[in-house]
Amino acid sequence: MRPSKREPDEMRAVSFERGISKHAEGSCLVRFGDTHVLCTASLEERVPPWLRNSGKGWVTAEYGMLPRSTGDRMRREASSGKQGGRTLEIQRLIGRSLRAVIDLQALGERQITVDCDVIQADGGTRTAAITGGFIALSDCLSWMEARQMISRDKVLKDHVAAISCGISGGTPVLDLDYVEDSAAETDANFVMTGKGGIVEIQGTAESEPFSEEEFAALMGLARKGITRLVELQKLAIS
Amino acid sequence: MRPSKREPDEMRAVSFERGISKHAEGSCLVRFGDTHVLCTASLEERVPPWLRNSGKGWVTAEYGMLPRSTGDRMRREASSGKQGGRTLEIQRLIGRSLRAVIDLQALGERQITVDCDVIQADGGTRTAAITGGFIALSDCLSWMEARQMISRDKVLKDHVAAISCGISGGTPVLDLDYVEDSAAETDANFVMTGKGGIVEIQGTAESEPFSEEEFAALMGLARKGITRLVELQKLAIS
Amino acid sequence: MRPSKREPDEMRAVSFERGISKHAEGSCLVRFGDTHVLCTASLEERVPPWLRNSGKGWVTAEYGMLPRSTGDRMRREASSGKQGGRTLEIQRLIGRSLRAVIDLQALGERQITVDCDVIQADGGTRTAAITGGFIALSDCLSWMEARQMISRDKVLKDHVAAISCGISGGTPVLDLDYVEDSAAETDANFVMTGKGGIVEIQGTAESEPFSEEEFAALMGLARKGITRLVELQKLAIS
Amino acid sequence: MRPSKREPDEMRAVSFERGISKHAEGSCLVRFGDTHVLCTASLEERVPPWLRNSGKGWVTAEYGMLPRSTGDRMRREASSGKQGGRTLEIQRLIGRSLRAVIDLQALGERQITVDCDVIQADGGTRTAAITGGFIALSDCLSWMEARQMISRDKVLKDHVAAISCGISGGTPVLDLDYVEDSAAETDANFVMTGKGGIVEIQGTAESEPFSEEEFAALMGLARKGITRLVELQKLAIS
Amino acid sequence: MRPSKREPDEMRAVSFERGISKHAEGSCLVRFGDTHVLCTASLEERVPPWLRNSGKGWVTAEYGMLPRSTGDRMRREASSGKQGGRTLEIQRLIGRSLRAVIDLQALGERQITVDCDVIQADGGTRTAAITGGFIALSDCLSWMEARQMISRDKVLKDHVAAISCGISGGTPVLDLDYVEDSAAETDANFVMTGKGGIVEIQGTAESEPFSEEEFAALMGLARKGITRLVELQKLAIS
Amino acid sequence: MRPSKREPDEMRAVSFERGISKHAEGSCLVRFGDTHVLCTASLEERVPPWLRNSGKGWVTAEYGMLPRSTGDRMRREASSGKQGGRTLEIQRLIGRSLRAVIDLQALGERQITVDCDVIQADGGTRTAAITGGFIALSDCLSWMEARQMISRDKVLKDHVAAISCGISGGTPVLDLDYVEDSAAETDANFVMTGKGGIVEIQGTAESEPFSEEEFAALMGLARKGITRLVELQKLAIS
Repeated sequence: MRPSKREPDEMRAVSFERGISKHAEGSCLVRFGDTHVLCTASLEERVPPWLRNSGKGWVTAEYGMLPRSTGDRMRREASSGKQGGRTLEIQRLIGRSLRAVIDLQALGERQITVDCDVIQADGGTRTAAITGGFIALSDCLSWMEARQMISRDKVLKDHVAAISCGISGGTPVLDLDYVEDSAAETDANFVMTGKGGIVEIQGTAESEPFSEEEFAALMGLARKGITRLVELQKLAIS
Repeated sequence: MRPSKREPDEMRAVSFERGISKHAEGSCLVRFGDTHVLCTASLEERVPPWLRNSGKGWVTAEYGMLPRSTGDRMRREASSGKQGGRTLEIQRLIGRSLRAVIDLQALGERQITVDCDVIQADGGTRTAAITGGFIALSDCLSWMEARQMISRDKVLKDHVAAISCGISGGTPVLDLDYVEDSAAETDANFVMTGKGGIVEIQGTAESEPFSEEEFAALMGLARKGITRLVELQKLAIS
Repeated sequence: MRPSKREPDEMRAVSFERGISKHAEGSCLVRFGDTHVLCTASLEERVPPWLRNSGKGWVTAEYGMLPRSTGDRMRREASSGKQGGRTLEIQRLIGRSLRAVIDLQALGERQITVDCDVIQADGGTRTAAITGGFIALSDCLSWMEARQMISRDKVLKDHVAAISCGISGGTPVLDLDYVEDSAAETDANFVMTGKGGIVEIQGTAESEPFSEEEFAALMGLARKGITRLVELQKLAIS
Repeated sequence: MRPSKREPDEMRAVSFERGISKHAEGSCLVRFGDTHVLCTASLEERVPPWLRNSGKGWVTAEYGMLPRSTGDRMRREASSGKQGGRTLEIQRLIGRSLRAVIDLQALGERQITVDCDVIQADGGTRTAAITGGFIALSDCLSWMEARQMISRDKVLKDHVAAISCGISGGTPVLDLDYVEDSAAETDANFVMTGKGGIVEIQGTAESEPFSEEEFAALMGLARKGITRLVELQKLAIS
Repeated sequence: MRPSKREPDEMRAVSFERGISKHAEGSCLVRFGDTHVLCTASLEERVPPWLRNSGKGWVTAEYGMLPRSTGDRMRREASSGKQGGRTLEIQRLIGRSLRAVIDLQALGERQITVDCDVIQADGGTRTAAITGGFIALSDCLSWMEARQMISRDKVLKDHVAAISCGISGGTPVLDLDYVEDSAAETDANFVMTGKGGIVEIQGTAESEPFSEEEFAALMGLARKGITRLVELQKLAIS
Repeated sequence: MRPSKREPDEMRAVSFERGISKHAEGSCLVRFGDTHVLCTASLEERVPPWLRNSGKGWVTAEYGMLPRSTGDRMRREASSGKQGGRTLEIQRLIGRSLRAVIDLQALGERQITVDCDVIQADGGTRTAAITGGFIALSDCLSWMEARQMISRDKVLKDHVAAISCGISGGTPVLDLDYVEDSAAETDANFVMTGKGGIVEIQGTAESEPFSEEEFAALMGLARKGITRLVELQKLAIS
């Protein structure tokens, strides 16, 4: 039995609250149970130096945790003077994942920055950030289309969403919360598109190495979960 | 006529949403119109080095703005590698203001950190942070009292709240929003206690120097506004 | 009786030593008793990015303390890798105060940086820096006028000076030294122009909140002190 | 045909040159074709704070690239003032991979730091670093056993090695060099133990999402490559 | 003919103004012509970690330039976030030079920090800093002796002073000012003790390599200059 | 007798291994006994800002030590966030030394960066870096000549090499290793050209001041050593 009483293949309640920011071109407060991430998409009419005069745009992401989003207060990264390795790793992952469904040529020479700030953490913040960041990004593209800047359907090639899986007490389970995550033998994050293509896989043995069979079980759970997340995304933006 | 159609002595709608964080000992999402600040109070059983073995505790504050809390996206301070002068100035002000109503001896050798993170900015973030930070701090002290750690009434000597005033188009007005703040001739922030004592005054001439009479008018508005804010605080925590 | 045997409304001996630097376009060693601040004004034919092609110039300030300007040696900020919050707060105040009497349009697209370095500290370093920084700035403008770059009287609209006041042992007093400042119940800094307009007010309750009456008494003392400082400035530059 | 004329399942020439450092307790220059990484293992009689008095030791890794290890000179991270996100991500991966085969309890309260410095880069530096870092770590443990500090066989539970795979021109291939890596549609890194357990999987779609079948083909290639790498490790340290 | 009309072996006017700081245990404003350096010696009852419980003390130095000590304003190192290579090199030199005449055992477990801050620069700041820093250090030791902390004569083994020499227009000259220094073919700094022992030699070819004969001429000039500086030091502290 | 059994005027075995890097325009692994430094020369078609449009090029150097190049592991400078004073001092010395034999006008508006990374340290790393850096630089110039970019003989005016000397146990000795260096009374580094001109002299008294006679003995040893090093350089590049 999982600590949260969920079935092995049962995700937490997922919700998307759009338009949460007065200023951002797209925004979404995504909740995976008690994990709450505020995602905003900001459009700028400039691109990184290596894309100037290329005709191509860029989508990037930044990630942060509020100091008391966690059980114990963490030191504020702005105060410690640098972003930690985990932060940099996660924001690189979010950026790659979102770019996987964007036609940068069709976007034109503009940059969209998706900021994912964790308001409250209970495991799975990076997967919630990707899944909710997609909504903010999609709304930003709709905002642009409404201003005749782009054709949204040409820029946005597909949906993208992410979920964590793990082996906990010997059982493969979907969408780990913090308690489960801390004790899991194996932890894996999957990022997939609406059409079912795989964008990112990250699997880590936390205690003992895992087998190909175990990994296949995790992949199956992930596919199921991401299929459901994409349905929820579609409901949210329709 | 003010851009917001408010009367000169009319504040924006103010609300306090308590218990917003699962983890923090006290928390509050405070709204002054479209200015939204998430305040959490975190208790730690340690004090800064200069208070060790003094029997006294400490209350401190940190302030941050989410990158897209503003009209244009700001660079994330964690990424630029340091907190700017404005951030440091504001968090020092919040800390001094909250300490003004705390008996550090009665708190005992513990530190409470009040984090004020601006989710959405529309002028007056520092005064909203002080006013809402008080609620988070008060709830933290209630949490401690419930665990027989302190007597809340001995630690918390009074209420504290803050409001901005300014001279806009020649008229003294209360609680400036961003549009008004950007164009004001004079800008002042006042921090006062529930009993009407003054904790902090900061007045700045933005274009022309101001007179004592003008400043007295601002002080009168501020007193009115803070009296109302303290009433709202009392309603919120009762 | 004050520790320095001064009357409540008596300032310390104030002096301005001009032309202290061989290199700077304007310079002044200002002394408020044992508080000594070296101020230099440096002219550069460039402006910050946000003023390029605006036709307007800029005046800014930087502040620092020599490591042993204080009773105990402080860590050198260059060595600790960042300027502290107090330093940033003070240099922002100095810059705003000096800009209050400058016509940036008449200055033209140039920047003047006023560096205020505390050689010896005994309370009131920021107010001495503003008062002496004005002399350095004024001399820089004379230097420019002598080279037909500007008309000094068009750029320099008024005098500006600053003084601290406080409530010490229940009595409002003018121009606190370090001993008094450390024990004061309330501490306030005032910046005013030669014509008596108010540029900045900063008042802080160090122990108990203060009343409007007490604040009015401090303002009265400040006005008296600044009137005298402006007379001394006029003597110095005539 | 691969640019290097290798078969799809053919690794580059791999060699381990042990004892390359006079000072380190264990050291190895590992070569995967033109990718050369110098790995040293340094023993220290202290552990990170969170392990003090736990009886457990720690194995960690740091990664760096010499500025001209690459085709174009990169800026030296010591000079730019921080380690980039890629560097932090890689050294966290190396550390986790090596710890997967270490019994930290049997190591006792000591830390071994494995430094992996890329002398020359031609793709696959992180997998070479893990594979060669294992040799340095193993030699460090032998050094310790020779001094009766530990029993090497109790501390070192298994071999660990890593290899990259990718889909290049539609074909799954093993051990990508820089030319192939730059153009690959999909890139994946696998870390496995001598017994065949999986320690880490990282798969990234560089252009189009990939399918489960494609990923399974990469996993098969990786297993073949790592089996061979472990044989070579065994030859090297026997 | 030298730009300053001095003879080749003629130093600039040198003066020492002692007791310039109210706070420091020893202080001296040293002037070599238009080069003015403020030196303070600060005593602390602690030593660096590597000397704890060794019974030995430490003497160290820090060096800085005020931003407008130079012809063009330099960026403040506290603001740029790090001390430059030149600064670090000079303060290491000052520290080594002063330690050369101190018996660290006789000093006991205490640290003296000599801060050398350049108020105005006109060449030769490092040699002025060493020569004036000696006076501040000596006065600090007298301060300690007056409090029965040490015996000054046991701690201070000798005088130490420094001078620059160079080859300018083919002629070896003593004590270069900025104009000469900028154009010199060779530049050398010498640090010697009162008894004539050499503590440091730094010689650099600025354009063409120099010969042993040229270097010997510089050494001869330096010896003459330092002999005179030590006489002036003795006059100053007697 | 020296710890290494060498005669007082006997250098360690010196070797140059050219072409060690696949990517760099020039490269050399230089060994002075157990001191091994990897030198690469990187050509870039850009110059520092102060040389733009001057027609002149630039040669600069960077220096680093691998963390375990030393007996005890040193902290990685990339991780500590800044290069230490010793590092900056050494890389400035290497850059000055190499520029002494380059005609920057004949080089044209290009920059060559010579990276010197210490793989293994046993005393004398800076002198080895200069001596080996010369080979990398020379090979880079040959590379450029082969592409008709420059005439190597016009750019490269002479050889340059460096050696350390010291007084150890009262005896002047050549080319100190780490054991000797740690205990030497006096330590000096000499940089000279192939024609015998002196480029840099750095002499430091480590315990007692030294005399002119002692220094002359060190200079004599250095001349002998550098003459030999230049012969070895000529052999290496012929």
